[in-house]
Amino acid sequence: MALAIEKEALSVYLVDIFPQIAEDFRIEELNQDRLVMRLLTAERHLRPGGTVSGPSLFALADVSVYAFLLAQMGPRALAVTTSASLDFMRKPAAGKDVLSECRLLKTGRVLVVGEVLMFSEGMDKPVARASMTYSIPPR
Amino acid sequence: MALAIEKEALSVYLVDIFPQIAEDFRIEELNQDRLVMRLLTAERHLRPGGTVSGPSLFALADVSVYAFLLAQMGPRALAVTTSASLDFMRKPAAGKDVLSECRLLKTGRVLVVGEVLMFSEGMDKPVARASMTYSIPPR
Amino acid sequence: MALAIEKEALSVYLVDIFPQIAEDFRIEELNQDRLVMRLLTAERHLRPGGTVSGPSLFALADVSVYAFLLAQMGPRALAVTTSASLDFMRKPAAGKDVLSECRLLKTGRVLVVGEVLMFSEGMDKPVARASMTYSIPPR
Amino acid sequence: MALAIEKEALSVYLVDIFPQIAEDFRIEELNQDRLVMRLLTAERHLRPGGTVSGPSLFALADVSVYAFLLAQMGPRALAVTTSASLDFMRKPAAGKDVLSECRLLKTGRVLVVGEVLMFSEGMDKPVARASMTYSIPPR
Repeated sequence: MALAIEKEALSVYLVDIFPQIAEDFRIEELNQDRLVMRLLTAERHLRPGGTVSGPSLFALADVSVYAFLLAQMGPRALAVTTSASLDFMRKPAAGKDVLSECRLLKTGRVLVVGEVLMFSEGMDKPVARASMTYSIPPR
Repeated sequence: MALAIEKEALSVYLVDIFPQIAEDFRIEELNQDRLVMRLLTAERHLRPGGTVSGPSLFALADVSVYAFLLAQMGPRALAVTTSASLDFMRKPAAGKDVLSECRLLKTGRVLVVGEVLMFSEGMDKPVARASMTYSIPPR
Repeated sequence: MALAIEKEALSVYLVDIFPQIAEDFRIEELNQDRLVMRLLTAERHLRPGGTVSGPSLFALADVSVYAFLLAQMGPRALAVTTSASLDFMRKPAAGKDVLSECRLLKTGRVLVVGEVLMFSEGMDKPVARASMTYSIPPR
Repeated sequence: MALAIEKEALSVYLVDIFPQIAEDFRIEELNQDRLVMRLLTAERHLRPGGTVSGPSLFALADVSVYAFLLAQMGPRALAVTTSASLDFMRKPAAGKDVLSECRLLKTGRVLVVGEVLMFSEGMDKPVARASMTYSIPPR
């Protein structure tokens, strides 16, 4: 399936609808099979000890699936997260950006399911995984 | 099981170990059966449209279970979140605080499981539910 | 909200649509707030050591939410499970029936969310918890 | 990491410890990176309409992760499932076997996390996904 929006246009669109997250996230890669998003780790994302917080990883997964959904289905700003499951497997490396690798497993008319693996930059084992379901409200 | 820390002491302890979250959360109620935590909703917790963001609800659930774990088991700052599942069921009311009701379903030596219902203040139907598992590292 | 079907009629209906599960499950209690379902534990539900298997607990949770959904919304045999999360917290007692306590947290037009606590009969601490989401296909 | 058991020995071992599941599952492929398990779909796995039931898919995911855990860590029959999350994305094809593709994301001393994609044989889009966590009891 061809993408409805390419990386540059999607990046502009995300900043437009979510201005407050523009300085947190950046799309690194986007093609039909996957999207890679970067969390630009800053002081506000950290827990004592310097690791990236759970809510920041949740936000990264959530934004990744939402962005990929927009890229595949076209802008539907009303899609809402209905469920999420996450496993936190390793301590994120202190002070490193976190990269997400996102795939969509289903893009139905009503439900979209995405899965995300997250890595501290430069590491080969994931710090966390997430599955997120979005609901597309009837028009 | 008697609580290892009462509400006032726990509140002081949480601010001590997580200074950056002190202005976001406040323990409203604590007894052996449940803990109620308040998210002091502010601009930084909102999404376009005025609803409380998913990461803010995740953070509320995570802090609620962690605080109750400390209250029941005594301070073990090393407990780490290992998994989480959330369902987002209704749009949080704009500009309202969110209250969590937390129970611990298991407080084992290795794993602690808590569940949380979250309500926009004054509403009787939950906006979200969460289950969180914490792992207690071997000493 | 009044129930669309009472306990006796619902029991008959479930056996009608799922004849193969009639000997596994029995509705113990049904009112507007909760449904209690019994797993009639038999050899085929057990794992080595005599504990009830994970798939049997999954089935109990799934049937509980589906039955309560039918009771509240009326027969819609097309509702399908779209997601599930479970925590297994204690070893079920050998040879005991398992009782589920089910609540519906959301009964929307598109999605229904239920949560279930499961207990070995006679025990006061849950062996497992589950959250299940059902999707109601557009008519 | 080299496997502790190869496919043939693992198949024999699984039948030995779980005789009742021997006719339901068969290991198709096993290497360091992934395990593929086949659900030998039979009447007892079906729901009305001929689709494979949710509990049967749960069992497939659970057995896949457990078998891969044994293959990587060596026989530890005491590993227990502590949490599971599943998304059911498409109706399984009637009368087809289901194939699982399993990866282990973490094999720690205390927790093992696996993820599983499940496909009706011959289809290229997954019918379901699952993440399962196993706890390894202290010796």
